[in-house]
Amino acid sequence: MLLVALPGELLVKIVIAFGGNALLETTDSRDYATQVKRAYRAFDAIWKIISMEDVVITHGNGPQVGDILLRNQISDSLPPPMPLDTCGAMSQGLIGQIMLEAYERVRNEKGISKEAVVTVTRSIVDPEDKAFLEPTKPVGAVFSDEKARELVNNNGWKMSKTEKGWRRVVPSPFPMEIVERNVILSQLRSGFLPICTGGGGIPVIRKNKTLLGVEAVIDKDLASSVLASSIEADKLAILTDVKNVFINFGKPDQKALSQITMEEGKDYLSKGFFGKGSMEPKVRAALRFIEKGGKEAVIGSLSDALNVLSGKSGTRFVKS
Amino acid sequence: MLLVALPGELLVKIVIAFGGNALLETTDSRDYATQVKRAYRAFDAIWKIISMEDVVITHGNGPQVGDILLRNQISDSLPPPMPLDTCGAMSQGLIGQIMLEAYERVRNEKGISKEAVVTVTRSIVDPEDKAFLEPTKPVGAVFSDEKARELVNNNGWKMSKTEKGWRRVVPSPFPMEIVERNVILSQLRSGFLPICTGGGGIPVIRKNKTLLGVEAVIDKDLASSVLASSIEADKLAILTDVKNVFINFGKPDQKALSQITMEEGKDYLSKGFFGKGSMEPKVRAALRFIEKGGKEAVIGSLSDALNVLSGKSGTRFVKS
Repeated sequence: MLLVALPGELLVKIVIAFGGNALLETTDSRDYATQVKRAYRAFDAIWKIISMEDVVITHGNGPQVGDILLRNQISDSLPPPMPLDTCGAMSQGLIGQIMLEAYERVRNEKGISKEAVVTVTRSIVDPEDKAFLEPTKPVGAVFSDEKARELVNNNGWKMSKTEKGWRRVVPSPFPMEIVERNVILSQLRSGFLPICTGGGGIPVIRKNKTLLGVEAVIDKDLASSVLASSIEADKLAILTDVKNVFINFGKPDQKALSQITMEEGKDYLSKGFFGKGSMEPKVRAALRFIEKGGKEAVIGSLSDALNVLSGKSGTRFVKS
Repeated sequence: MLLVALPGELLVKIVIAFGGNALLETTDSRDYATQVKRAYRAFDAIWKIISMEDVVITHGNGPQVGDILLRNQISDSLPPPMPLDTCGAMSQGLIGQIMLEAYERVRNEKGISKEAVVTVTRSIVDPEDKAFLEPTKPVGAVFSDEKARELVNNNGWKMSKTEKGWRRVVPSPFPMEIVERNVILSQLRSGFLPICTGGGGIPVIRKNKTLLGVEAVIDKDLASSVLASSIEADKLAILTDVKNVFINFGKPDQKALSQITMEEGKDYLSKGFFGKGSMEPKVRAALRFIEKGGKEAVIGSLSDALNVLSGKSGTRFVKS
């Protein structure tokens, strides 16, 4: 037995979810150097918080796993393609290196002692989740009619016709539990900066005495919210490329919101005021965190991160 | 301040390096399910040690990073190829998921409480390492004369002619330091099973206030040895597909060795008694661990792991 100081005590515990633009702007080349540059900008925007509080970083993987999928099945002469969930695992390694390189630079420039650690993270989903009955998320390459038919017959894929051609559609089930929750909490207690839950985590189901990967994608903001609740974080911050949550965004009557209560949020959601697949899942993630006992969730611009985190800008979610 | 029991105290600290056959036999299909089956067999062979002592698992990535490289640059219509070191990072995510799935099954079958954690791991190399002057390790696809010339001119690759055609050759520098050493030690102290240093770690150099990835490969046994020394492990175990270290392996006068002292080992190495690129780096890794103060290193068969670990079979390395 030793007397040990837990660095995590008394600090504010914050889960910060980096939006897609933290790693890539839509017009960016998707080469390695560009992604490191973007990640550097992201860490540079929040380094003060990292140095002062107990921060966990989570991130998406959309463009990266898309690229891995494009390479995965381009030729029958290649080695066996990996399942979608395993491509997600590969993207955690890929983005992990990018984040580590970017953070290391900020760390050295600012003289931060805290070390970052990238953990391969899994999210448990329910095999009975109704998302498995109706896959809706398009992933990977565009295929011709003929190839699409072949993939449906041989691989059992569900395909959907888009403007450019056929694409595979996969389910996006709810992340019930982050498997690495204890690991992440332990890293925080030991004074590290956990970088985890990449792409919402590798989706797994409990079966045959193990956790089996399933071909699905997970919403990274929802997974971040579930993680934040499970480690009893004080705050969930979703940093993206918009300054505020808007209702009726892009329409003449659009309105920026500086604060949303549980009741208001549920009302707005039921009226479909938020962009499906863009702001709506973020709002759901923020509201869920409050519902599960979290004190505060914020959504705002990554470039104005410190003000968003301190409540001076962006949109704040509170219980009432 | 809290009174905390450190589970790591009094236990034997062992770094176990899984050889290539732990994840794939040479005749195996390289699909996901086969790799999980192999990893299950590996964890099943050592579960008792995992449940009783402070174990760290390391592993190679040869076939896996080879497959990622084949997919990386097969077509110019694909997104920008990732650097070799980043393909290594991807393989850490890939193999990480495989190892987690396999360990989770063994864990549930045997009722082990210890959780595994896969950490993206980097190894610092010296940019002045003479390996950079003379790249020797062939990686990735085989190219035609014309394509090889193009890659030399456009990408600055070094190429080497093999029986099948041209292949890229890359340096294999010495891993001076495992960046995630503190993280791994902290995981051990908190009672986790660290799975790390995949493929010898992502090679990085210190430059411009950061750690930059470099295109190289690292010997996983050497990296495991460096890690083992740096966390002051009691034992380094290199588990592979041969029962013993042999001198003159495959020749009429081959001889299995049950014990090798520092002095003997150096003598054998200087006489070139071990297979280059196969047993020699393993012997070097074992000897280095002893030289740096480690008590014992063992090399032996994964299928007989418990006997190798207890010194009943395999080859034992000791100071004198």
